[in-house]
Amino acid sequence: MTDLINLQGKLDFENLTKNIVKRLEWLGSFAKDPEGGITRLLYSQQWTDTQQALKCWMETEGLDVKFDEVGNLSGILKGVNQTETVLTGSHIDTVKNGGLYDGQYGIVAGILALIYLKEHYGTPKCNLEVVSLAEEEGSRFPYCFWGSKNIAGSAYKKDVENLADSNGVIFSEAMSEAGFNFRNETKSPRKDLKVFVEVHVEQGNVLETEKKSVGIVKGIVGQRRFTIEVNGEANHAGTTPMGYRKDAVYAASHMIYETLNMAKQYGDPLVATAGRIDISPNIANVVPGKAAFTLDLRHNDKNTISHFTERFTEKIKDISREHGVETTIEKWLDTDPVPMDPQVTGLIEKKCKEKKVSYKVMHSGAGHDAQIFAPFIPTAMLFVPSEKGISHSPAEYTAPEDLAEGVKALIGTLYELAYK
Amino acid sequence: MTDLINLQGKLDFENLTKNIVKRLEWLGSFAKDPEGGITRLLYSQQWTDTQQALKCWMETEGLDVKFDEVGNLSGILKGVNQTETVLTGSHIDTVKNGGLYDGQYGIVAGILALIYLKEHYGTPKCNLEVVSLAEEEGSRFPYCFWGSKNIAGSAYKKDVENLADSNGVIFSEAMSEAGFNFRNETKSPRKDLKVFVEVHVEQGNVLETEKKSVGIVKGIVGQRRFTIEVNGEANHAGTTPMGYRKDAVYAASHMIYETLNMAKQYGDPLVATAGRIDISPNIANVVPGKAAFTLDLRHNDKNTISHFTERFTEKIKDISREHGVETTIEKWLDTDPVPMDPQVTGLIEKKCKEKKVSYKVMHSGAGHDAQIFAPFIPTAMLFVPSEKGISHSPAEYTAPEDLAEGVKALIGTLYELAYK
Repeated sequence: MTDLINLQGKLDFENLTKNIVKRLEWLGSFAKDPEGGITRLLYSQQWTDTQQALKCWMETEGLDVKFDEVGNLSGILKGVNQTETVLTGSHIDTVKNGGLYDGQYGIVAGILALIYLKEHYGTPKCNLEVVSLAEEEGSRFPYCFWGSKNIAGSAYKKDVENLADSNGVIFSEAMSEAGFNFRNETKSPRKDLKVFVEVHVEQGNVLETEKKSVGIVKGIVGQRRFTIEVNGEANHAGTTPMGYRKDAVYAASHMIYETLNMAKQYGDPLVATAGRIDISPNIANVVPGKAAFTLDLRHNDKNTISHFTERFTEKIKDISREHGVETTIEKWLDTDPVPMDPQVTGLIEKKCKEKKVSYKVMHSGAGHDAQIFAPFIPTAMLFVPSEKGISHSPAEYTAPEDLAEGVKALIGTLYELAYK
Repeated sequence: MTDLINLQGKLDFENLTKNIVKRLEWLGSFAKDPEGGITRLLYSQQWTDTQQALKCWMETEGLDVKFDEVGNLSGILKGVNQTETVLTGSHIDTVKNGGLYDGQYGIVAGILALIYLKEHYGTPKCNLEVVSLAEEEGSRFPYCFWGSKNIAGSAYKKDVENLADSNGVIFSEAMSEAGFNFRNETKSPRKDLKVFVEVHVEQGNVLETEKKSVGIVKGIVGQRRFTIEVNGEANHAGTTPMGYRKDAVYAASHMIYETLNMAKQYGDPLVATAGRIDISPNIANVVPGKAAFTLDLRHNDKNTISHFTERFTEKIKDISREHGVETTIEKWLDTDPVPMDPQVTGLIEKKCKEKKVSYKVMHSGAGHDAQIFAPFIPTAMLFVPSEKGISHSPAEYTAPEDLAEGVKALIGTLYELAYK
């Protein structure tokens, strides 16, 4: 491994930058997708190859290594007191044709942080553990956070065992083929964990736009998703006067326009997105009889989400009446905002100030493993910038200097948590 | 045929109503589609069977019958002066799973009118001819008005001979298999035609809404069709603040809403339709990077169409700038309005008043064979109501009484044109 971690005695901040990039590329090489980017779906051969490679690297660096029952891989730097553990890490799975940073950056950052701390400060007061979480994206089976939920004790065999992937392979078969089995749910979850810190790419363009290297996440947004279905009357586009129409697209456009206007008026951090539209019959010369669109709504305050929901629902009903169409609003996703631990985020902010890392306290608009840990143990998250906010794409990119600043902030944080 | 045309001596207005319905059902029986409605595509077996059945009926009624080179079928009631012809009729082809009225009603109405006139008034001053036009819909091959264009001399072999249907059958092969060949284009088009009158279902809901039996068409609208493509930036729906977005759907909704508002403000008979929308990537949790929609624009005055085009183009450019997206507007169809002959429509109006037929002078928002004849000879069109405006569907329906009123108006018109 010395070609990758060229220590020249010790890992220092100077050689950190190039080591991170090399290590991410090395890790990505185990799951290259011929169609672009990397594809590393839960329990696939690419997944197994990568976890094995990581295990080998962790061992070489002198960490104690273990898989748990479901395939989460841990590298442990043992502390004086081995009954308590400071945990870092992120997920190893990717979406199809994903990028080099989402998930695996948090694992590489964690390993490099442990190497640095061990070399500079020796044995920590408690265990320091980096985890390569089995799954977060929900890209192979329709289930998210499989890795972190198993550690937090909120994953259940009955919820996943019969799920099938797009090739018809059943979850339990895929798991068993990869050499794993379900966690014994009668056993209580791990009691040694005292804190979890995750490092991740932002997947947005806030840090880039505001020219900050690190984001300190104060909370993960709550989300609601709706499908709004507008039923009008399909008619001939030439022979139906405007006044006799029940045009579903006219009504839906009006609804989308007014709802997004309202979202802008609410101001940050509220975001609303009409990401999907389905029209019927979707022919140029037919007045559309049906239009369905989705609305994805996020904010870090539950009351604001509820208030906005009430207001946009009223607005849509008014517009529906105005256009003489029938409209239904179906909510199909509803998750509460998850605050991060203020003590741990305060500590991170203090370290960033000390180390002169440029940072921004912000919320996360995307879901992360940290939201599974947060109700269970004190949890914090660090972001690094994503160029143009691009994520879930081979074009995902974070500048090496920013990747290094993220590790620097993580090192400072873990030092405070495990050595002081 | 006496079971259908129960003359009891003579065809009169009393038995007209039930005869029309029976005759339409009889004609529809030659092209029943197992998937619903009737499907009678150009030169198909169903097409041939129907034209042969019509030929047989025409002969039984004592009309002189002939096919032209391309398959238009005519039944002629010879006049004293045989160098001039008053023509009526419509198209025999249908869309896939079409209804019982679109096209074939105009042919049945024409035959019944000729029978009535012959019985009541004997030999006309000039020829009276009813034509079952080979093709209008463009449903088998991507070409419309094949029948009428051949009579008007505006159909060309080179434009169609190599067109393929969805099974890969070439136009010229299909034609030759049905027993027809191309018209000799060096021969000038027919010189005997002095007027064309077409009866057709409205395919809209104006007559039904205004409770009129007959529409007198003063013109067929001009049409323009556009595709408007909005290019923004695809982004994560959770991590991209509203102010940092280039949301193609937000911009497109705004454009559609304002353009259709403007169309309503212009007032009848302007109609504008955004019938087709395509979004990319069309995923609930991704800010859409691309949205393309069509705009179908119709009016009976060319200047109004041009004026509206200028105004909506400006509006769309403004909205595009406001949303920070790039927008292109492509025009892919542009046909001028076609006025009907004022003398012939005036005559029809006079007859409707005389015979106490409830009528409305209106324009046609759909294209018809009449627009091919109009630049060539004086042309007029009569509409009967379409229930709920439904057309191109097995649910197409016109009440028998309205069908009869349409024939009554046609009889009066043909009498004026051929007997006075």
